[in-house]
Amino acid sequence: MVEHSESACNRLGPVFDLLGKRWTGLILGSLMDGPARFSELSRSVEGVSERMLTERLNELVGVGLVERTVLPGPPVGVEYHLTPSGKALEPALDELAAWAGEHLGATAEDC
Amino acid sequence: MVEHSESACNRLGPVFDLLGKRWTGLILGSLMDGPARFSELSRSVEGVSERMLTERLNELVGVGLVERTVLPGPPVGVEYHLTPSGKALEPALDELAAWAGEHLGATAEDC
Repeated sequence: MVEHSESACNRLGPVFDLLGKRWTGLILGSLMDGPARFSELSRSVEGVSERMLTERLNELVGVGLVERTVLPGPPVGVEYHLTPSGKALEPALDELAAWAGEHLGATAEDC
Repeated sequence: MVEHSESACNRLGPVFDLLGKRWTGLILGSLMDGPARFSELSRSVEGVSERMLTERLNELVGVGLVERTVLPGPPVGVEYHLTPSGKALEPALDELAAWAGEHLGATAEDC
């Protein structure tokens, strides 16, 4: 828990611009469980197209929340993992998810 | 801080659908400081149009985060305040704002 300040609310715009995009929350949630290959993310983030997953991952790499590593293989592949900044988002996302479960009537089946 | 669970990420979709909309974070942030009249919100949420402010407030009332009270006056007015569900969002928003300040390079001037 962090002390509330009036200026805090002003910082939420850029956060929600980023996290409010479809799939981004689910992608981050998936990477919270550990590094994943593109193909694994494609399966675990149900319903996302490969094009959209690529786009969202590139955005997350661009803002420094995710890093991309080329695996020499075989099979050759690409792995994604959270940076320390990305990992630092976990308590806030957990807190939001807990709030949603209690106050928005969301359940795990909403996925 | 809340324990992380795999299913937590599935709850983030509806949260970001709601909070990801432009102005909503700023409106909630403003109401965290206490109840406010429509005209006060209109001033404190800089740049929002009256039409958009009305729309966002109605959404927040609809999901039970904000309550609307008609003040008998004079002058007659409408006051908005957070419900307990809305208030319960404060620690998560503060945590997100703190994260943004540290990791997204956001500042109070980004308003």
